[in-house]
Amino acid sequence: MFPDLPSYRCSCGRRPTPSVERWRCDCGGLLDLPAAAVTWSPRRGDHSLWRYQDAIAVPGRELSLGEGMTPLVGASPDGEEGVRLKVEYASPTGSFKDRGAVMLVALARLLGATRLVADSSGNAGTAVAAYAARAGLAAEIFVPAGTSDKKLLQIRGHGAQVTVVDGSREDTARAAVERVEATGAFYASHVYNPYFYEGTKTYALEVFEQLGETAPATLVLPAGNGTLVLGAYLGFAGLRAAGLVDRLPRVVVVQAQRCAPLAAAFAAGREDVEPVTPEATVAEGIAIAAPPRGTRILEIVRETGGAVVTVTEEEIARAHAALAAQGLWVEPTGAVSYAAVRRLRAEGSPFMEGAVVAPLCGSGLKASL
Amino acid sequence: MFPDLPSYRCSCGRRPTPSVERWRCDCGGLLDLPAAAVTWSPRRGDHSLWRYQDAIAVPGRELSLGEGMTPLVGASPDGEEGVRLKVEYASPTGSFKDRGAVMLVALARLLGATRLVADSSGNAGTAVAAYAARAGLAAEIFVPAGTSDKKLLQIRGHGAQVTVVDGSREDTARAAVERVEATGAFYASHVYNPYFYEGTKTYALEVFEQLGETAPATLVLPAGNGTLVLGAYLGFAGLRAAGLVDRLPRVVVVQAQRCAPLAAAFAAGREDVEPVTPEATVAEGIAIAAPPRGTRILEIVRETGGAVVTVTEEEIARAHAALAAQGLWVEPTGAVSYAAVRRLRAEGSPFMEGAVVAPLCGSGLKASL
Ligand SMILES: Cc1ncc(COP(=O)(O)O)c(C=O)c1O
Ligand SMILES: Cc1ncc(COP(=O)(O)O)c(C=O)c1O
Ligand SMILES: [Zn+2]
Ligand SMILES: [Zn+2]
Repeated sequence: MFPDLPSYRCSCGRRPTPSVERWRCDCGGLLDLPAAAVTWSPRRGDHSLWRYQDAIAVPGRELSLGEGMTPLVGASPDGEEGVRLKVEYASPTGSFKDRGAVMLVALARLLGATRLVADSSGNAGTAVAAYAARAGLAAEIFVPAGTSDKKLLQIRGHGAQVTVVDGSREDTARAAVERVEATGAFYASHVYNPYFYEGTKTYALEVFEQLGETAPATLVLPAGNGTLVLGAYLGFAGLRAAGLVDRLPRVVVVQAQRCAPLAAAFAAGREDVEPVTPEATVAEGIAIAAPPRGTRILEIVRETGGAVVTVTEEEIARAHAALAAQGLWVEPTGAVSYAAVRRLRAEGSPFMEGAVVAPLCGSGLKASL
Repeated sequence: MFPDLPSYRCSCGRRPTPSVERWRCDCGGLLDLPAAAVTWSPRRGDHSLWRYQDAIAVPGRELSLGEGMTPLVGASPDGEEGVRLKVEYASPTGSFKDRGAVMLVALARLLGATRLVADSSGNAGTAVAAYAARAGLAAEIFVPAGTSDKKLLQIRGHGAQVTVVDGSREDTARAAVERVEATGAFYASHVYNPYFYEGTKTYALEVFEQLGETAPATLVLPAGNGTLVLGAYLGFAGLRAAGLVDRLPRVVVVQAQRCAPLAAAFAAGREDVEPVTPEATVAEGIAIAAPPRGTRILEIVRETGGAVVTVTEEEIARAHAALAAQGLWVEPTGAVSYAAVRRLRAEGSPFMEGAVVAPLCGSGLKASL
């Protein structure tokens, strides 16, 4: 029916076809898309991520709100010469999640879905609600209790139904899955559906183009579920497969010290991630105690010669202030990658040699007050 | 000292040189810059308004936070074929004021200012504070009492001093001018300093480029002080002077019915604008009772064959909801131009014939809740 939509891959060998109902393998495993070389033919007149449409597995330009092609700016003049910050919050809904959300909604529409379900504590849910509205699809967003009224207002404003789950982030995901299974809705999950990474992949393509068609030495990336890590890796791996870059940037993943399951596994040399009991952190956007794709994230870090580092609450706060002092306004989670950059530089880390790119993932206007 | 910085022009004939202290003519009149043909040589690799730097009277690219090159998207599929919305809120500080603020701060720095003063109830003040931080200049922002804590937090976060004035928007401006006169600070005024319009001018250049190097038939633009109207006019007039367009788009200015001094003057056929006593409106960003450049705005409307229209509170609310229902999230003032589009279409207005472009000026994330 959609000959051009790639089938999923599971590590068990199955290759399920995309469909409204399909969100994991029959074996219960996580789905991926086949690795693909990037077709590098930017449409220079298009100032959104759709300039790379030849490298994106799903058509969806007509749903665009202009997501992507975010600015890449220098960090403060006080000696951070090699560091570039990607202003991901200058995006239609104020976070990088727009990149992936437009892909999921495009896929859902193409498959004939009429109803979407998503779970999120914030940015992903808002983005899915916005693009679902754009596509004219009904959406139901599951959020944990305590989500700010402001976010609920926006999600409802986009016409989505909000279901508040009295429990943790994980309970919220379970409730969403139950609804998906009960109703046959399309599960617009940034964690389970790999088409999301077709969107976050464009982060890498933009960095490559904005650096004059070269790869940086190091990508510093925050991770809760790691959707930007997974996408950025796909992008650079696809550029390497196309012969456009020689080597992959080192991927340095950043977590909040108070919720750092990937950092714990990396430090212990483990291949799998054990759930942690999270403590409260200002970096709520990355407070994921048990990231389903953790094993893959660790592989990426090791393959590229990177690391997983943690930052303290105080370091996040100081990075937030340092960004504001140079005109950049982020939500607390949005300061995490820069907090890591500052510490690694202070330590004289070799990860800071060469060109370093770090994203500012979410707008300070999102923080409630 | 800066041979390339154009001198100001006043209608009295004086041509004052830009300096830190200069913000109006010795005769008390408003300053302009000389009309100039646009040098059309977009730097295609630059995805900010600085791609048009050959058409901008002040250098300042190094201060850029990536402002400009905002998306131009179709309006809802329900029959608004010719209408394009420019997503001005996908901007570093969340509003189109970034376009002008970067120019004022660039000018201030070039002139050797160390201290800036601005007055604003919101978006302009935040933008000036952000770019002043970027430039390492001290800033003091005067705001009227009642400005939301959230805005104050951001302005202070950028290191600017906030002075809350117990009075109206006009009292706030007076307090700012007093401080300017007393201290010799640079007055970073979007109303008085015409270098601001070098920034808002790029709105027109982008529309021209995004429409395949053609002009739309109609620009629908909100106006309080009219900074986007004045800039957009300069842009299309400059393109016409360069022989790139044949005629100017009709400029349809929109005001909130509850504070509509320009509409009253236009309807009465007057050349000058009489101050009104404003009633409270959700469109707080354009609630300007006595716009200093009102006469010029009326000239532009008449020269281009446009009009000044008003929208009611209810129309603004309905437009806000209609935008949200298509994935677009604006502050109430940001819905004003679309409210006018909807009404003019419903009326079968000839202004809606041909390509129509309207901006979504401010982010919904800015609205306090
Ligand atoms: C501001 C911000 N930064 C980073 C992240 C991390 O994304 P992920 O959980 O996909 O790693 C999120 C997720 O919502 C976010 O909102
Ligand atoms: C969202 C929004 N729209 C429109 C305007 C109108 O700008 P001006 O007063 O320059 O006409 C403003 C001014 O602050 C604004 O914040
Ligand atoms: Zn399987
Ligand atoms: Zn004069």
